[in-house]
Amino acid sequence: MKPINVGLLGVGTVGGGTATVLKRNAAEISRRAGRDIVLKMAANLDLDAARAIVGDGVDVVADGFAVARHPDIDIVVELIGGTGIAKELVLAAIDSGKHVVTANKKLLAEHGNEIFARAQEKGVTVAFEAAVAGGIPIIKALREGLSANHIEWIAGIINGTSNFILTEMRDKGSAFADVLAEAQRLGYAEADPTFDIEGHDAAHKLTIMAALAYGIPMQFDKAYLEGISKLTARDIRYAEELGYRIKLLGITRRTDKGVELRVHPTLIPEKRLIANVDGVMNAVMVKGDAVGATMYYGAGAGSLPTASAVVADIVDVTRLATADPEHRVPHLAFQPDRLADLAILPISEVESSYYLRVNVIDRAGVLAELTRILASEGISIEALIQKGSEREAEAEIVLLTHRVVEKHVNAAIAQIEALDSVTGSVTKLRMEALNG
Amino acid sequence: MKPINVGLLGVGTVGGGTATVLKRNAAEISRRAGRDIVLKMAANLDLDAARAIVGDGVDVVADGFAVARHPDIDIVVELIGGTGIAKELVLAAIDSGKHVVTANKKLLAEHGNEIFARAQEKGVTVAFEAAVAGGIPIIKALREGLSANHIEWIAGIINGTSNFILTEMRDKGSAFADVLAEAQRLGYAEADPTFDIEGHDAAHKLTIMAALAYGIPMQFDKAYLEGISKLTARDIRYAEELGYRIKLLGITRRTDKGVELRVHPTLIPEKRLIANVDGVMNAVMVKGDAVGATMYYGAGAGSLPTASAVVADIVDVTRLATADPEHRVPHLAFQPDRLADLAILPISEVESSYYLRVNVIDRAGVLAELTRILASEGISIEALIQKGSEREAEAEIVLLTHRVVEKHVNAAIAQIEALDSVTGSVTKLRMEALNG
Repeated sequence: MKPINVGLLGVGTVGGGTATVLKRNAAEISRRAGRDIVLKMAANLDLDAARAIVGDGVDVVADGFAVARHPDIDIVVELIGGTGIAKELVLAAIDSGKHVVTANKKLLAEHGNEIFARAQEKGVTVAFEAAVAGGIPIIKALREGLSANHIEWIAGIINGTSNFILTEMRDKGSAFADVLAEAQRLGYAEADPTFDIEGHDAAHKLTIMAALAYGIPMQFDKAYLEGISKLTARDIRYAEELGYRIKLLGITRRTDKGVELRVHPTLIPEKRLIANVDGVMNAVMVKGDAVGATMYYGAGAGSLPTASAVVADIVDVTRLATADPEHRVPHLAFQPDRLADLAILPISEVESSYYLRVNVIDRAGVLAELTRILASEGISIEALIQKGSEREAEAEIVLLTHRVVEKHVNAAIAQIEALDSVTGSVTKLRMEALNG
Repeated sequence: MKPINVGLLGVGTVGGGTATVLKRNAAEISRRAGRDIVLKMAANLDLDAARAIVGDGVDVVADGFAVARHPDIDIVVELIGGTGIAKELVLAAIDSGKHVVTANKKLLAEHGNEIFARAQEKGVTVAFEAAVAGGIPIIKALREGLSANHIEWIAGIINGTSNFILTEMRDKGSAFADVLAEAQRLGYAEADPTFDIEGHDAAHKLTIMAALAYGIPMQFDKAYLEGISKLTARDIRYAEELGYRIKLLGITRRTDKGVELRVHPTLIPEKRLIANVDGVMNAVMVKGDAVGATMYYGAGAGSLPTASAVVADIVDVTRLATADPEHRVPHLAFQPDRLADLAILPISEVESSYYLRVNVIDRAGVLAELTRILASEGISIEALIQKGSEREAEAEIVLLTHRVVEKHVNAAIAQIEALDSVTGSVTKLRMEALNG
């Protein structure tokens, strides 16, 4: 059978990994796919750099459109990233009747509705396993493996940089800024780390997973984002004393009121497997009504792990290229004409448990005031510890609450911060049991 | 579009769960599959019991062949189990041009080569996600999600009964027989538990995973099986002191000499996530050359979790039913005419690390004798602890070795057991680092 010709847009870390995997495992991939898969063209601004990576026999050009529209190319692989030229190239490829494989989470989370609609119209597939959690086949699990389920929630460690920083902060008791600097030295964090540490990257991935899980359009603009830059080693230590680990989680939950879509540091019971996913590794928990809780673990980034997902998509597209478009697996798991109109909840309407740390003047009656305020907002307390403060005559009270809607916690915090006996602002972190 | 009609063979625990999931999540499943999926017929020896479970509107019959060959049925779901009537019914369904979904690991591990060949010939699909690790979509991960990889090894906790027993033995320090009796009372172990605790069930699942991972025929008869019935609470405790947990693992590894295919109790470093998979839960680690180590975790058995996998297969078959047979995903991940001829290694040729416990007469020179024998067989020692024995003037020596081919360990053990200063037989357990 005629080989499938792949055209690569962007020959960087993942592009290089994709070229390596396609070449190194060519025989095995052909045995799986039923035909040879050949990297035929690559587009890169630096032609020499790209040639050094993809080797001879691959036509390297500077113009991405020359690849996206080339008549010999069957599958266009977009690994440029971002929403500028990458978007134009993906749309050009679709318009030229090419199937597209992309690792571009930002593009899909922000412009996926437009891109998938265009692909549907043109009868081509846009595959994106590499866009979420690197090499972990979580897109396939959500789209196909769990298709029997009413999916209730997803919670994932889906940003390796943040997880590395949190792991180091816990292991060494170091401050955020120190660990960030170390991560930058090691190459685990970018020079401008905002995108990773403030939750943007995780929210892009979460947006895509929520769309697949519930059959809703991409709604990145409605996601709640809170990063790890304000997290202190002290809160990590207190959480640990209470039996919890703090992880930056992307959480989406389907409730009667709507869909929660939120990224924030989260306390998780230390006995959960996902609480023990450390360093740059990723893991995603998915709770379905039939299957219960499942978890998927692996490398969430890196050249070869991400290439693993890119090439798996290429194999999938190769296998299914001849299926009638209407019988292919739908891009977002659900048929495009049967998406649901579920509202994304604002963070104030989200229900969670909470960790609250309050700095108080150490005198009789303070605790009574705190508990009275919490009770008045319908918040019940699961655990409470009192710690000495660095400042004389002050103390810290750390509280864990039962589940409650966030606006009530915010109202309680406003009243607590107004107390004479309370100094500074209250630290609030969310807490999830994540039980099956 | 016309609904897809499903015929169920066997309405027991999983059959009932399948009926429940198809009904409860009918709307969502239809939104995913692009058409309604209807349970149309069911065959069960006890008609009344089946009717009570599947409800009105399903034609319940006693004769499975009436379902397997019925012209209105599109997909036949075999949930009877075993290799007797189940095999006849699956072949009858295939011969009648039906797609088949089955949870029958024994049937596939022992007769899969014949069944898949027949399905290939007739142009139908036999899907079997539920045959391995219940609701965890591990078949899909191996067959599709990791298709870019040269898979190096798989290690799985794939028998919930055994894992429950091992977890209880560790938590309570109880003896195997006591925990087994408790598991039987709780319904976690069968009246005749042999199939689970002696590794047959795990070996069936491992055989299927190895076939998918390496593109080799099913070779269950060549799997090495060692169960947990001889494991003592003492060895579990000693392992723990050394930083390890003992799990019944199914392990398959591709080496230059051939394929390892083995089920046995295994020491795993306690810091590995899989070492912390407790109770009846399952988890499978897969190591690919590109992706590195990945892990898949969830419920490995039970009515609804297994039904989750059965129904996911039904949705898959429904979606892909119109693809040309040659462009469907191959049953065993690799194209049927491109399987590999890799030999399965006998256990004596397997390479592992080892835990050895030797009961000795507590006198000078014993340790020198032991270490001399180990050195003469090329076995180096990673750790050694000496423990008091229940019997006076005796002691126990517990050794961990570095990696070595098993036949050398067996030769050393024979020599050690022949020593005057050694009493009883040497306890040998295998140990795997399972690092990425």
